[in-house]
Amino acid sequence: MVVRTSSSPSTLTTSTAVAALDALREAAPLTQCITNAVVTNFTANALLALGAAPAMCDIPGEAGMFAGISGGVLINLGTPTSEQRDAAREAVTAGTPWVLDPVAVGALPVRTALAHELLEHRPAIIRGNASEILALAGAGAGGRGVDATDSAEDALDAARSLAIRTGGTVAVSGETDLIVDATRTARVTGGSALLTKVTGGGCALGAAMASLLAVAPEFDAASAASAIWAVASERAASRTGGPGSFAVAFLDELAAIQPADLDGRVGVDTEVAR
Amino acid sequence: MVVRTSSSPSTLTTSTAVAALDALREAAPLTQCITNAVVTNFTANALLALGAAPAMCDIPGEAGMFAGISGGVLINLGTPTSEQRDAAREAVTAGTPWVLDPVAVGALPVRTALAHELLEHRPAIIRGNASEILALAGAGAGGRGVDATDSAEDALDAARSLAIRTGGTVAVSGETDLIVDATRTARVTGGSALLTKVTGGGCALGAAMASLLAVAPEFDAASAASAIWAVASERAASRTGGPGSFAVAFLDELAAIQPADLDGRVGVDTEVAR
Amino acid sequence: MVVRTSSSPSTLTTSTAVAALDALREAAPLTQCITNAVVTNFTANALLALGAAPAMCDIPGEAGMFAGISGGVLINLGTPTSEQRDAAREAVTAGTPWVLDPVAVGALPVRTALAHELLEHRPAIIRGNASEILALAGAGAGGRGVDATDSAEDALDAARSLAIRTGGTVAVSGETDLIVDATRTARVTGGSALLTKVTGGGCALGAAMASLLAVAPEFDAASAASAIWAVASERAASRTGGPGSFAVAFLDELAAIQPADLDGRVGVDTEVAR
Repeated sequence: MVVRTSSSPSTLTTSTAVAALDALREAAPLTQCITNAVVTNFTANALLALGAAPAMCDIPGEAGMFAGISGGVLINLGTPTSEQRDAAREAVTAGTPWVLDPVAVGALPVRTALAHELLEHRPAIIRGNASEILALAGAGAGGRGVDATDSAEDALDAARSLAIRTGGTVAVSGETDLIVDATRTARVTGGSALLTKVTGGGCALGAAMASLLAVAPEFDAASAASAIWAVASERAASRTGGPGSFAVAFLDELAAIQPADLDGRVGVDTEVAR
Repeated sequence: MVVRTSSSPSTLTTSTAVAALDALREAAPLTQCITNAVVTNFTANALLALGAAPAMCDIPGEAGMFAGISGGVLINLGTPTSEQRDAAREAVTAGTPWVLDPVAVGALPVRTALAHELLEHRPAIIRGNASEILALAGAGAGGRGVDATDSAEDALDAARSLAIRTGGTVAVSGETDLIVDATRTARVTGGSALLTKVTGGGCALGAAMASLLAVAPEFDAASAASAIWAVASERAASRTGGPGSFAVAFLDELAAIQPADLDGRVGVDTEVAR
Repeated sequence: MVVRTSSSPSTLTTSTAVAALDALREAAPLTQCITNAVVTNFTANALLALGAAPAMCDIPGEAGMFAGISGGVLINLGTPTSEQRDAAREAVTAGTPWVLDPVAVGALPVRTALAHELLEHRPAIIRGNASEILALAGAGAGGRGVDATDSAEDALDAARSLAIRTGGTVAVSGETDLIVDATRTARVTGGSALLTKVTGGGCALGAAMASLLAVAPEFDAASAASAIWAVASERAASRTGGPGSFAVAFLDELAAIQPADLDGRVGVDTEVAR
């Protein structure tokens, strides 16, 4: 059983989010992305804008080696070809902290089997929408592809149980983002719904978490990435009139955002299991 | 022999195009796209902007199942890897109406063989440029890749014979788009030549037809998609100065377009075979 | 030993660069790109904007045939799947002049082996950053993926030895681009650092060189492409505020650029081996 004890929330993780972005800009961490064919370009551009150094090395015989020299790794299961599946198996055993984005898990058998196999290698962060997190935890049937058909709060218990199982952090994307580890829950509000009208908004968020893993602990990396997404998407939405121009402005805002802009954007509850 | 009898053209299909876009916005149909590596991102963004829910599920073992829960399916042969070819074979037998986009068929053997194999599974809509439609009907040698080297009207008889053979609709993209079934011919004029300077303009049009198949009969779905493309590309071209900014504005216009904007954009001839 | 003799540099290749762009606009050469999953869309849009006709035909059984009807071919090793590796082997034996872009060679074994194998088929142009050129020439360990960790001038001797070995031209991208054949060195200055914040800037440059190979000798093709990139990126940067809007503006500038705009942008030293 879990009781939530709010403990001066925004101060705590806000300061770590600010520090994480600052450290990312300083380090420009090499970030390996094994990700789906739809979003590779947007993901690479988002990481470049943010200040990281993305590389998509997703073939067997190279993926494990490249993961070993990277600061963080993303495994996104959106279009998992046979070669990508083997590349993912190599990459998760390289010893580099990694993010699992289990796109459409539950609904589709090949990626579902792979997600469960990879889970044994303890992702530092799992990022998905509520339907995906519920399905991965065995608590739901999965959504219809990339669409969430459940709200983020519905997936809180599933996220907690996954976090305890992996010893890592689970991030549930939604109108309010939840970031959960064994004892803490962060909530990030704000952002823009236009981000759901651009393919790869969530996938690139997972990639940003992978970059931040190179410079920050997992709970802080996930929280910082969510806060960055919220601020940049709000700013981009405020000056654009449709999804095409929003996507362009979002990349500009990722490049323009300063660590201090994240101040006050993350609220954390400390939860105590009894 | 075919005699064309014009029968108060614009009224007929204009009203169905308006209704089709209205229904798409209401249903947000899941649309599976097995498409080429060059245009996946633009295609997904175009469908999201339009109001559909795209997903690119293109691996064997998942593609058939996903086609079964989708409202429409696109099979685009632009870069048909071995896994995509098997995924396409699964998807066309799922019982969901589907669109065939036979990119560069005729000129290249692997996709040409696959296109003829898939044709037996009766695509609801075939969309291509004139050279591709001529080649698929056995009446031409195929163009040089994605370039049409013939005009749309040159492909009218080939389109008609394909439509009769499949029992479906054939759409020929060109300066004027032709949409043809066994007895009818729709023509959609307008649009902007800038669309030919952006990769994926035609490929995403095929995807829009697949989304519209979820909510409208095939002739209406193809006509509505062509009319949407004409209106959105004209509007985007009117306020941009090059292909980069045009592509961005085109996505914005797809999101902004209203069903009533299609009024009067489709002219239909009823043709009588004697 | 090599002695450089400057011989009224800018006149010589500037005029050939102007002529090359003029010829490209006239011919709209079919250009086959076997390239990585991250940059296919941007590459195709860059070539379309420039006036070429791109096509990404990268499966075995078609790639060789398509290379044979193309005016130029690009082989980019960024994400070399098994099928792409076989497609590349077909394409380089078609007799069409081709460009090798050895992305991240040296650091990763699969692509490194393939690059050395393909090198035997004498690429007309090799384009890479300094780390890649050093690694390919056997003079360095390779960078960390797509990042250059060496400056272009550091790779001058390595580029020369590769050029002599292949009988072709080697282009080293950097703050100043070097274009090198057995006896000449061109330098192209200017451009914008924003290009390094957009994925595919260098990859698309290699593709532009492939298009220009259809209408110009290799040294001139490589020099002209570098000059085009410098002018278009400067202009795009002058009116944009971030990497997202820069990428859009860069495509617009590629479409707007006129041959005369290249006047005076290329300086050539003639080098004499003794």
